[in-house]
Amino acid sequence: MNTVEIIARKRDGISLSKSEIEFFVNSYVKGSIKDYQMASLLMAIYLNGMNDDETVWLTEAMLDSGEKIVFPKPDDIYVDKHSTGGVGDKVSLILAPLVASCGVRVPMLSGRGLGHTGGTLDKLESIPGFRTNLAWDEFKNGVEQIGCVVIGQTENIAPADRLMYALRDVTATVESIPLICGSILSKKFAAGPRGLVFDIKCGNGAFMKDIDSAKNLAENLIRIGKLMGKNVRALITDMNQPMGSTVGNLLEVLECIEFLNGSWQEDLYNVTMELGAEMLMLAGVKSGHDQGLELLKSKLEDGSVLRKFQEMVEYQNGDLSRLLETEKVLRSRYIVQHKAKQGGYLRAYCTYEIGRLVIELGGGRITKEDVIDHSVGFKFFKKIADEVSTGEIIAEIHAQDKGLANDIDEKLYRNIEISEDRPAIPELIKERLD
Amino acid sequence: MNTVEIIARKRDGISLSKSEIEFFVNSYVKGSIKDYQMASLLMAIYLNGMNDDETVWLTEAMLDSGEKIVFPKPDDIYVDKHSTGGVGDKVSLILAPLVASCGVRVPMLSGRGLGHTGGTLDKLESIPGFRTNLAWDEFKNGVEQIGCVVIGQTENIAPADRLMYALRDVTATVESIPLICGSILSKKFAAGPRGLVFDIKCGNGAFMKDIDSAKNLAENLIRIGKLMGKNVRALITDMNQPMGSTVGNLLEVLECIEFLNGSWQEDLYNVTMELGAEMLMLAGVKSGHDQGLELLKSKLEDGSVLRKFQEMVEYQNGDLSRLLETEKVLRSRYIVQHKAKQGGYLRAYCTYEIGRLVIELGGGRITKEDVIDHSVGFKFFKKIADEVSTGEIIAEIHAQDKGLANDIDEKLYRNIEISEDRPAIPELIKERLD
Repeated sequence: MNTVEIIARKRDGISLSKSEIEFFVNSYVKGSIKDYQMASLLMAIYLNGMNDDETVWLTEAMLDSGEKIVFPKPDDIYVDKHSTGGVGDKVSLILAPLVASCGVRVPMLSGRGLGHTGGTLDKLESIPGFRTNLAWDEFKNGVEQIGCVVIGQTENIAPADRLMYALRDVTATVESIPLICGSILSKKFAAGPRGLVFDIKCGNGAFMKDIDSAKNLAENLIRIGKLMGKNVRALITDMNQPMGSTVGNLLEVLECIEFLNGSWQEDLYNVTMELGAEMLMLAGVKSGHDQGLELLKSKLEDGSVLRKFQEMVEYQNGDLSRLLETEKVLRSRYIVQHKAKQGGYLRAYCTYEIGRLVIELGGGRITKEDVIDHSVGFKFFKKIADEVSTGEIIAEIHAQDKGLANDIDEKLYRNIEISEDRPAIPELIKERLD
Repeated sequence: MNTVEIIARKRDGISLSKSEIEFFVNSYVKGSIKDYQMASLLMAIYLNGMNDDETVWLTEAMLDSGEKIVFPKPDDIYVDKHSTGGVGDKVSLILAPLVASCGVRVPMLSGRGLGHTGGTLDKLESIPGFRTNLAWDEFKNGVEQIGCVVIGQTENIAPADRLMYALRDVTATVESIPLICGSILSKKFAAGPRGLVFDIKCGNGAFMKDIDSAKNLAENLIRIGKLMGKNVRALITDMNQPMGSTVGNLLEVLECIEFLNGSWQEDLYNVTMELGAEMLMLAGVKSGHDQGLELLKSKLEDGSVLRKFQEMVEYQNGDLSRLLETEKVLRSRYIVQHKAKQGGYLRAYCTYEIGRLVIELGGGRITKEDVIDHSVGFKFFKKIADEVSTGEIIAEIHAQDKGLANDIDEKLYRNIEISEDRPAIPELIKERLD
């Protein structure tokens, strides 16, 4: 098959065949098709799109480029969740043990933070000793024994995606629906789930800023996932303010532990429970939404979820006692309070910018090679529409450097808006698709 | 400036600024922008186009990436010709000494054969000793002393084009009007001409198969050339059969020498003379077409052009006496006659395929690294609409291997069509643009 002719066909708006797509992906992973040829094809795909057949073939070729887990148990018990990424989105840490404590198996493949969004792996690695690079067998056994394990993408999981994602990042070909579908689904399905629930974030802290583009992505992911024989559903949820009360790796883990001990922010609670109910339905544990919520609530209240979380952390070598005992030691050196200069109502967060400020504090990455400081970040005391009085503490800035903390304090004023009128509370669950 | 953002702008159909284009081209030549990023931008340019400003800026940036000759003499005396490439197109070899003998200076930058088309440099290198890799000063002095010198693109001439052209070839981004304009004009103008005449080939042996695409390319080259302050004109000429009577490097040189000695095929004569008349007008030597033709004819007849050709060959270290004396020695080992199986009229050549058959004979290149055999090729005895009788010799196949020659003989039958009815003779000069 001729590499240049395949690129030319996509360039000219002609649909590619299954064998052409397989040849291109396989040859790219082997190195006989070069980065510049893949870059050219990616731009042609970005601009000319792919139909459903092509997208499925692309995803399958990417998935087949690596190792795949096949779980032995009945089909629908294995369910994972994917979030498109937001600021303060710590749902996975709670959701995995939450649904696992209801009998669902969660083989969770997670990512690292990149750009303004955080990543589940980085958060969990705030826990002393926590390992996310488990061997395939460790992962598989953990899922069977405990019910939930969280790992990251390894060399062997969808290597085509790893290479293509790195290339898309530097060739302006990230925001393409077929390429996004291929990337997410090939990775996720390699870890063996038969069901997948999507949390499509929507708002000024998400990749999808408006409901239409969020819906479009959700519909595509669901359609392609189903064509691949999987059970998939999606929620579109609000990302117009940091989720819960913290942003930053260690701070978010601590917030999760508080959550598991019975104290939570409403938005984090509701999104987690709604996603959990979807997962129970996908797994066939509960057939109805309200029944699911009830089961989840009972597991939270009787301490099962906290115990499941502890089991998971222990299985992955994490030491929670060290985290809790030495909480103060691990924390950042400085905490600066960000106080309201005027009274009124909290009108808006520039959520994307708040994610970027975490990078400035040292808690995020611009390139994959950046080393992060788990301890820094923000704690917020106000949600949108909350009343604020002059001088009241809106946020804490956790930093390692005093000057930097003060600098970020200043910048926060430009990114938190206070108004005289009470704004509407953003709708949390914007859409439910299956 | 941000590389990915520049790609994203072109991807989104936004026009690039002069500084963005300069940054991209310069960084690419320096190596800080990678092949895969250029490939992605090239595909975005292919699909979204470039306006005239962008195309001029791109061409200038490519031109400025290398060294440029500035000739000291008055403006319009320096004129070059560019052909978009065909089969048996040996015009440059005659045209350069032809117009130089009328006082025009021809700093001719030529290319090598690639794919089905031949290249002027390869043809000239059939002459024992002929050097096309002259130093910049040798080239410049030769143009001033003799009036015409032919060299190839060196490391220092428009290096951006050299890199980009190699990349376009393997990323399906060759056939893009702004990229073609940038490539041709940046190279050509580096050698210092103030005027340029284009021979846009059109037909089944040319890159432009139909008159509309040929006209579109011609109009774009003229518009961009003029925006760059140059004098440019174009002829669209027929390429539905091999030009003249030979295809193959040495065979074409021998045909040119016959031409200079007074014996020629009508199509080769007419295209050469028409292009020559255009160049005389561009150079201001003659203001009218017919006056120009008259002057050219007189120089051909009084032997000036043959002497100029000899001077040029000598200046470039070529040894014509060795070529002519040892003509038989240098020639290919086998000559097989291709005879008509049926009588009638020569209806059509599959001209592209005939160019490909020269590659099969060893006389052309598929990749730039291929070594070529100068001696092989075809001599044709019939033009379209000529009468053919059964058993009459239509062509000679010059080959180094008997089996291969017989094989090509068979293939020729599929690529030369004979019909009962006399077809129309293709119009030679299809369009004249300025």
